[in-house]
Amino acid sequence: MKQEIPYKIYLEEQEMPKQWYNVRADMTKKPAPILNPETLKPVTVQELSHIFCEELARQELDDTTAYFDIPEEIRNFYRMYRPSPLVRAYCLEEKLNTPAHIYYKFEGNNTSGSHKLNSAIAQAYYAKKQGLKGVTTETGAGQWGTALSMACAYLELDCQVYMVKCSYEQKPFRREVMRTYGAHVTPSPSMDTEVGRRINAQFPGTSGSLGCAISEAVESAVSQDGYRYVLGSVLSQVLLHQSVIGLETKTALDKYGIKADIIIGCAGGGSNLGGLISPFVGQMLKGEADYQIIAVEPASCPSLTRGVYAYDYCDTGKVCPLSKMYTLGSSFIPAASHAGGLRYHGMSSTVSELYDQGFLTARNVEQTEVFKAAQMFAKVEGILPAPESSHAIKVAIDEAMKCKETGEVKNIVFGLTGTGYFDMVAYQRFNDGQMSDYIPTDEELKKSFDALPKTDL
Amino acid sequence: MKQEIPYKIYLEEQEMPKQWYNVRADMTKKPAPILNPETLKPVTVQELSHIFCEELARQELDDTTAYFDIPEEIRNFYRMYRPSPLVRAYCLEEKLNTPAHIYYKFEGNNTSGSHKLNSAIAQAYYAKKQGLKGVTTETGAGQWGTALSMACAYLELDCQVYMVKCSYEQKPFRREVMRTYGAHVTPSPSMDTEVGRRINAQFPGTSGSLGCAISEAVESAVSQDGYRYVLGSVLSQVLLHQSVIGLETKTALDKYGIKADIIIGCAGGGSNLGGLISPFVGQMLKGEADYQIIAVEPASCPSLTRGVYAYDYCDTGKVCPLSKMYTLGSSFIPAASHAGGLRYHGMSSTVSELYDQGFLTARNVEQTEVFKAAQMFAKVEGILPAPESSHAIKVAIDEAMKCKETGEVKNIVFGLTGTGYFDMVAYQRFNDGQMSDYIPTDEELKKSFDALPKTDL
Repeated sequence: MKQEIPYKIYLEEQEMPKQWYNVRADMTKKPAPILNPETLKPVTVQELSHIFCEELARQELDDTTAYFDIPEEIRNFYRMYRPSPLVRAYCLEEKLNTPAHIYYKFEGNNTSGSHKLNSAIAQAYYAKKQGLKGVTTETGAGQWGTALSMACAYLELDCQVYMVKCSYEQKPFRREVMRTYGAHVTPSPSMDTEVGRRINAQFPGTSGSLGCAISEAVESAVSQDGYRYVLGSVLSQVLLHQSVIGLETKTALDKYGIKADIIIGCAGGGSNLGGLISPFVGQMLKGEADYQIIAVEPASCPSLTRGVYAYDYCDTGKVCPLSKMYTLGSSFIPAASHAGGLRYHGMSSTVSELYDQGFLTARNVEQTEVFKAAQMFAKVEGILPAPESSHAIKVAIDEAMKCKETGEVKNIVFGLTGTGYFDMVAYQRFNDGQMSDYIPTDEELKKSFDALPKTDL
Repeated sequence: MKQEIPYKIYLEEQEMPKQWYNVRADMTKKPAPILNPETLKPVTVQELSHIFCEELARQELDDTTAYFDIPEEIRNFYRMYRPSPLVRAYCLEEKLNTPAHIYYKFEGNNTSGSHKLNSAIAQAYYAKKQGLKGVTTETGAGQWGTALSMACAYLELDCQVYMVKCSYEQKPFRREVMRTYGAHVTPSPSMDTEVGRRINAQFPGTSGSLGCAISEAVESAVSQDGYRYVLGSVLSQVLLHQSVIGLETKTALDKYGIKADIIIGCAGGGSNLGGLISPFVGQMLKGEADYQIIAVEPASCPSLTRGVYAYDYCDTGKVCPLSKMYTLGSSFIPAASHAGGLRYHGMSSTVSELYDQGFLTARNVEQTEVFKAAQMFAKVEGILPAPESSHAIKVAIDEAMKCKETGEVKNIVFGLTGTGYFDMVAYQRFNDGQMSDYIPTDEELKKSFDALPKTDL
């Protein structure tokens, strides 16, 4: 039986998706509309087109079209690193001595080191098609900035990245990858934007935050002719592009007649999780199948498990549309001891609404346990995982161990979003036994909840 | 026509080689035997078994057996990251506007980031099978040490790595990857070995060299019970294991009816080049086909193009067998400005003999040009290449541009041995316009040639 399924299931290039899937189209109760921060009314495509390029603004607000054609140029780019393998984790199964069958969709086999490239090329493509000169964005851990740099280099589009200052300083190699691809990388908060100057004045010596870098990137985009802002997670358009992960996964499973029982994804802003689960949730929405879906988030930034479902600002400078989401409050910043990504205060509105409707469950895990799982995985499966991805590994192992107890032969599928090659400072801390865990107190969370905006919606 | 060949040719797992190919078996004039450093007579399996485990000692000296079965356990490990893709460089072709068809065999899609894993798992496997406790080795840039750490972690074998001190300090992340895989990493020269103490006393504050780290690793292996020494390049056994690269490449080309015209590989110790070209040279030796084969080496460490063909020491401490090879002399150390690997003073005896017999040609290239080629490749093909691999890219581009001039539709195949994710210090120097080139003078080379050992062979 084991021999029948190869270690790595690679689809043929002609089996790659030709359309992205928009799960919102099949939801009876849709995610709440995003709001104009000035009027607090649902934002229009026209308003959004000042920030995003037009086609992306349309994709963002379209919750009725189920399928969007993937332009041929984007499909050609995808062919450079896709289809990504669906790997049967034979060695991990053996190590755990579990009857469960474990599969992971590996998105790290490209220079950006993660799934982020799937949306980066789409966003860069539409910007190029609209005749823009360039795009601006923010990056935290650096995966998104790297992905966007690669996409822009390919299309010969200018790329300006505001990189959270502590990452800029602690991850000089990520910065150099972006520079090698021709991107302009600025530590945030900078003195180039109004919001950057304001935050630098308010908090001298601040090492920055994602929310602040977003505000800088947006300001920079709207103040330059021929530029728009792009974002690597949270947005509905990003989930749409990332549906390629789930679609490929489903095709590969179907090809071998495998029915997933549990689907697990790490969750920061929700782009990977949303992309992975979209086609499976689509089946659930239509009553065609049922899956146990688990979102895994850091205990130090637990937006689904400990946040509130409310309208909130997406950025510190409050220039972006407001989104109804599970959020810890836009003033929440994870503890300094938190390594890796998954540090956004909120969650994609689509994932939030699906969670609220009970289509998925969520768990939070502490990082020391996450790194233990990562190390074990690296040793037996040969891939050094990103800290983000390792959250999913941790819960996949937990579920496989439950199967060992019960003797159930469940099919566990998880998303291995990327590699940890640029996260060795965190691994070093772990190797030296100096990694610590932090769980925010209820009082801390209450403080950031109190700063949530008041809306009637 | 273009549509017929996919971007990435992936073989099925059952198409992977079940045997390694030993090109020496088909050579009429064989590579010269390696010599015992004490007696200066050809070394025996028994003598070699003090340093290497027995099966590897046998493989090292066997120049008549053409095929060696790959044990099933090693093939299972290979399945975690192999077959590696043979990529059609459509985007590079378009960028160059060349009629040439360019293919590259990409060996970087694994955590060690290079082809080194192919031999690491084989050497660790035979050590484990012999009941050893562990292995020792040296590493320079760190690819080999990482690969060996991964293989040893998988087989639960102890792994002791002597890492050239300057790399240990400048590449802390490589070191951390090895530590994450459970390896013990010691900066070389250390105070743990006699040779290390001697060199530290002779050259206080030295930042080490590959030749010195080899001597330390060998001393450490022979002085510990249940340990043997393993080496990632140069040796005939390594070329044997690396033949998996060439065999897969040939199967993939044959599958699509592609006849390679030019085959290009970077050359340091010769493991990648030797592995890539083995089955093709095998055809040439049997008169079945003809290929233009080009070895590419750094202008700052030009063993084939400017070395002499003579018996030389493989290590600084002179504890390893002597090998007849193209060499710059074991006292040669590349200039400090030289980035990346390919810094060994000699060349695999098999590659040396094939070169001497005219089966391949060699070129040396300066590193600034190499990094320019690397950057262009990264932008259009989406993979940030290792500096080592980029030597092959540079010459592949040169050959493709010649085709543009002549209008010839040649099939150019090159080995892309790895990724540059841990080489960002070198890329940063390039990005900052601070990379320099160094070509050793004739006087410098003469000095190290004069220190060559005197043998009658």
